[in-house]
Amino acid sequence: MRTAPPDADLLAVARGDAPADLVFRGGRVVNVFSGGIEQVDIAVRGDRIAGLGAGYEGAEIRELDGAFVLPGFIDAHVHIESSLVTPREFARAVVPRGTTTAVTDPHEIANVHGLEGVRYMLDDSEALPLTVFVMASSCVPATHMSTSGASLGRSDLEALARHPRVVGLAEVMNFPGVIAGAEDVLGKIEAFAGRPIDGHAPGVVGMGLNAYVAGGPQSDHECTTVDEACEKLRRGLFILIREATNARNLDALLPMLEGSALWRVALCTDDRTPPDLLDEGGIDAMVRRIIAAGVDPVDAVRLATLNAAEFFGLDDRGAIAPGRRADMIVVDDLESLTIRDVWCGGEQVVSGGRTLEWASGDSPAPPAPAMQVELHKSAFRIPAREGDIRVIEAVPDQIVTGSVTESPSVSDGEVMADPERDLLKIAAVERHRGSGRVGLGMVRGIGLRRGALAGTVAHDHHNVLVVGADDVSMRTAVEAVARAGGGLAVTLGGDVLALLELPVGGLMSRSPIAEVRRDYDSVVAAAQGLGSTLHDPFMALSFLGLEVIPALKITDMGLVDVDAFRIVDLWV
Amino acid sequence: MRTAPPDADLLAVARGDAPADLVFRGGRVVNVFSGGIEQVDIAVRGDRIAGLGAGYEGAEIRELDGAFVLPGFIDAHVHIESSLVTPREFARAVVPRGTTTAVTDPHEIANVHGLEGVRYMLDDSEALPLTVFVMASSCVPATHMSTSGASLGRSDLEALARHPRVVGLAEVMNFPGVIAGAEDVLGKIEAFAGRPIDGHAPGVVGMGLNAYVAGGPQSDHECTTVDEACEKLRRGLFILIREATNARNLDALLPMLEGSALWRVALCTDDRTPPDLLDEGGIDAMVRRIIAAGVDPVDAVRLATLNAAEFFGLDDRGAIAPGRRADMIVVDDLESLTIRDVWCGGEQVVSGGRTLEWASGDSPAPPAPAMQVELHKSAFRIPAREGDIRVIEAVPDQIVTGSVTESPSVSDGEVMADPERDLLKIAAVERHRGSGRVGLGMVRGIGLRRGALAGTVAHDHHNVLVVGADDVSMRTAVEAVARAGGGLAVTLGGDVLALLELPVGGLMSRSPIAEVRRDYDSVVAAAQGLGSTLHDPFMALSFLGLEVIPALKITDMGLVDVDAFRIVDLWV
Repeated sequence: MRTAPPDADLLAVARGDAPADLVFRGGRVVNVFSGGIEQVDIAVRGDRIAGLGAGYEGAEIRELDGAFVLPGFIDAHVHIESSLVTPREFARAVVPRGTTTAVTDPHEIANVHGLEGVRYMLDDSEALPLTVFVMASSCVPATHMSTSGASLGRSDLEALARHPRVVGLAEVMNFPGVIAGAEDVLGKIEAFAGRPIDGHAPGVVGMGLNAYVAGGPQSDHECTTVDEACEKLRRGLFILIREATNARNLDALLPMLEGSALWRVALCTDDRTPPDLLDEGGIDAMVRRIIAAGVDPVDAVRLATLNAAEFFGLDDRGAIAPGRRADMIVVDDLESLTIRDVWCGGEQVVSGGRTLEWASGDSPAPPAPAMQVELHKSAFRIPAREGDIRVIEAVPDQIVTGSVTESPSVSDGEVMADPERDLLKIAAVERHRGSGRVGLGMVRGIGLRRGALAGTVAHDHHNVLVVGADDVSMRTAVEAVARAGGGLAVTLGGDVLALLELPVGGLMSRSPIAEVRRDYDSVVAAAQGLGSTLHDPFMALSFLGLEVIPALKITDMGLVDVDAFRIVDLWV
Repeated sequence: MRTAPPDADLLAVARGDAPADLVFRGGRVVNVFSGGIEQVDIAVRGDRIAGLGAGYEGAEIRELDGAFVLPGFIDAHVHIESSLVTPREFARAVVPRGTTTAVTDPHEIANVHGLEGVRYMLDDSEALPLTVFVMASSCVPATHMSTSGASLGRSDLEALARHPRVVGLAEVMNFPGVIAGAEDVLGKIEAFAGRPIDGHAPGVVGMGLNAYVAGGPQSDHECTTVDEACEKLRRGLFILIREATNARNLDALLPMLEGSALWRVALCTDDRTPPDLLDEGGIDAMVRRIIAAGVDPVDAVRLATLNAAEFFGLDDRGAIAPGRRADMIVVDDLESLTIRDVWCGGEQVVSGGRTLEWASGDSPAPPAPAMQVELHKSAFRIPAREGDIRVIEAVPDQIVTGSVTESPSVSDGEVMADPERDLLKIAAVERHRGSGRVGLGMVRGIGLRRGALAGTVAHDHHNVLVVGADDVSMRTAVEAVARAGGGLAVTLGGDVLALLELPVGGLMSRSPIAEVRRDYDSVVAAAQGLGSTLHDPFMALSFLGLEVIPALKITDMGLVDVDAFRIVDLWV
C-alpha cells in the first residue's frame, strides 16, 4: 500500500483551523465509497484533499455551479511503450483525458534494455502530473522460445521492488509455467508475496485456472468472454477489462458489469497507439461507454478509480476523500462525461477543456540504441518441400491469432508470398545480438498486395518483424528500421515509402506525441496504399511475434504453437 | 498483505495431476466474490484449498449432500483479554462457532506488561486452529490522564511490526491527538504507512472526521448510528460493526447494510465476556441476525469473511478459492446457519456440531504478576464541600456514559454513597507502581444496594476499579483482587462473597473458559445479590475508567471529561 505520510498542516486545514489553498464550492462529488453523489465543498491543501463539507475557507475559491467532481482515473495496466512515446509525452496524451495515475509494466523496454530500460522509464516519469507506478516485469524474456535483449531474474526484480514507485509484480504471462509449478516463475512470485501480482491467463479455465490462481497471480486482463471473466472472478481474480488498440474486450464484457463485478473489476488500456490515444482516448472513453451501456455512473467511475486503487494498494488516491491526492476531474454532466477541468495533485492541468502547459524538467538520456541486425543474403528464402504449411491468421482487433493449414505457393523451388491468396511471408529477425537468426513463416490477414512492412515493436522480444509480398521489399524494410535505431517502415522494392523512427529501445520516440502520431498515420497510410485492409496493420504486426498469446506466432527461433507451448515446423 | 508462498505440490493437485488430501463433494459453495452459490467440489491439499470444480480425486472424500460451505469467519477487531482467558482458551470458544481468524489488539495486556505482554499473546496464539493476527497497540497508555503499567513508543511498535503475525496499527483511540496533529501519534501512524491502520473515533463527524481520516486511520468500529456510519463510510473509512457485550451496535446499524456497505463493512466483537461467547456466540451470531434482517446470505457472509480479509490484506483467506487457507464452515441451511462442521487449515475441528479435541502444545509462561496496591487508610474518603458534584452515569449495554450533576449526600463532613438515590462511590486505585494514587468519584446506574465490586479489568489502564456502597466493602474488594494477582471480586463489609482470579496481567485466567465462565457467573450473581440491576455489572464497571469514550470517566488521576479531554474536579 502507498499511504501519504500524515501532515500536520493538512490536518489544520481539515479541521478548519487554517485556510485551504483552494476550495471547490457548489460541486457535486461522485462518492465511490457510498455509490452516491454528494453536494459538498472540497478543501485542498498542497497536493492533497483536506476535507469535504461546508465551512471551509481558502486562499482561492472555485465555484463549480453544480458541476460534477470525479476522482482522477487510474489506468490499471498499460505498457507506455505502446504509445510510441516516452512516459512524459504519454502523460501529455492521457492527463487531459482525466487519467492521473498509470500502473505500467515496462516489459517492452525491459526486453530490450533490461534493468537499465526500466530505470529509464522510472526516471522519465518522475515528477509528472501523471503518477506512474511500475509493476516489475515478471516475464523477461517472455519465454525461452525467442531471443530478447535482456532478461530479468529474481534478484533484478527484488532490486526493482525497492523503488518507491514499484508496487508489485507485473503480468505473469508464463501461465503454463505457473500451472506447471516451474521453480523460476514461482520464485519471482514468492519474491513479491504480500504485494499485488498481476496475472495474464488468456482462455485459462477449469483446473488450469485453479492452479494458476493457487500459484499467486491475483488479476487477469485477458478475458474475452463473460463466461471466462466470471469464472476468473469466482476463483478470486480481480478482472481488468482491457480496451487496447488491438485487443478490444469492453463490448464483450459489458454484460458482466453488475452486482459483485462493480467491486472486483478495474479498467485498463494495455497497448494503445498514438491515434487511438489522441482521437478516442483511453480510460475516459471506456467509462463513457460503460455509462452509455446503462451502468450507474458512480459505479462506472468506481471501476476506473477506487477499484484499481484498492487492488494495487494505492490508499492515497482513487476517491475524493480526506488525505488523498487531489487528483480530480470536473465534468458538467455524467452522460457525455466531457472533461472540463483536470487537477493533478492540486495543480490544474486542464481548464475549460484546454490543456495547460506544465514544466516537466529535463528528460533523462535514454539507453544507447540496441540494434544489431545481420541479414544474410538469403535470409527470407523458404525452400519448398512436400506437404502443407502452417499459416498464422491475423484476427482484426484481437491479439489472438488463428492457426490454419494451407498448401504453399511454390516457384523455382521456393515458397513464395501469394497476395492473391492473402498469403504473405513473415520473418522475425533477431536484432539484439547480431546473431543473424531469422524465423520464417506465412501470415494471412495483413492484406498487402505488394511491398513490405517492418517494425521493431514486436511484443515482447522486439526483434524486427517484417511482412512482405517479396523478399527485396522485406530486406529494404528491415534495413530501414535498423538504420533508424528502430522504428516502423513501409517499403516497395528498394524504396522506403514511409518511416517512423523510434530510437529509444526501438520502441519509443522522444518527440511530442502529436508529431509521432503524424508519422504513424503516414506509415499506416503507406501500408494501406500497398493494399492492407487493416485499420492498423502495425499494431497487428506487433503482436504476431508474441508467443504467449494463442494460437500461432513467430519469433526469431521459428513458429510457436502457443497452445502446445513449443516451436513447430513451418511444414505440417 | 499476507500471501501464502506458491507451493508446487499444491499446484499439482490444483491442475489434477496429483490426488487431493481431501475432496468435498456435492456441496454448495458460498462464493463471496461473485455473490452467488456454486455447486462445485472442493479439493484440499495440506492446509490449503487447491481447486474448485468437478473431477478431483482425493485420499479422502466427504459427501456434503447439498450442505453449504462458507469461508471461516474473521473477527475484525477483538481484545482477546476481554474473554478473560488466554488466546488458546479463547480459540476453544470461538472456533466451534466458525471464527477461524481473529484480528486482535492486545492493548489490555500491553497496558500492564508492555511488549512482554504482547509477545506473550503472540506466543500463546502460535499454531492454534484459530489464526490470530495482531494489530500493534497504538495507544498505550490510552492518554496522559491515567497511569498504566507500560507504554509502547514508536520504536516498540516498529519492533512488533517485524513479527509475521503483526499486520498493522491497532485502533488509534487518541482521536483528539490525530485531529490536533500531535507529533507522537502521527509518528506511530507514519511507522505503519502502507499497512492497515484501525481507527476509533466515537461520534467524530464533520471537520473533525476529515482531519481524523486525513491523519491516517482507515477504519472505525465505534459507530452507533447509521448517519454516523454512513458519513464515515463516505469519507473512506472501512466500517467494522461491533457487537460487544457492553457495546451493541448491530441493531442500530443493520439498516446501512445495502449497496456499497456490503463491500465496505466487516464485523467485530471487540470485547465479549465468557457467558456471551459461550451462550450467544460471536461473529456467527452477528451473521445470523444480519441474514434474519433480510440481507442476502452471501452478502452477510462476505461481511464476516472477504471484506475483513481485504481490509487487512489477508490475501490467503476470506474465501473458498484456490490457494487460500482451507478454513471452512459447513452448514445445512443459510437461515439457521447452524454450524455442522468446521475446518481450520484443512484439519477438522468440529464434526456434526461436536467440537473435536485438538492439541495445542505447552502454554508459554505468562509475565510475572503486576499488582502493587498501596491503599492508604482513608483512600476512599471524600471530604464534603459546597456545591454539586459530577456523577458518572452508566448506560446499560453501552460503553459511553452520561455525565450528570447532583447534590451530594453528606454525612459527618464526608460525601457518602447513597444507594437510595443510586449514587455509589467509585474509585480507581493505581496498581502498577504502588503509588497509592486513587481517583475518586460517584457513579449512577450500577445499582448496588450494599457491598462493593472491584476488578482489575479496567480499560485500558487496568488499575483496580471499585464501586461500593461503603468504604469498608470497597477496601475488602480491592485487597481481595490484589491478593489474587488480579481478578473480579464482590464483597460485603469484611467478607469476600465471590472472586474470579485473573492472574495473567490481572486480566486473564489460564483455566478453561468453561471454568472461568462458572466463576464469572458467580461474581455476577453475587453482584446482583447485592442489588445490581445490570445483567453484567462487571462489564459495565470495566469501561467506567476508559477515558477515551465519552462522556465522564474515572482514572487514578481523577475524573475525566472526555469531550473536553481533561481532568475535571468532582465538584462543579
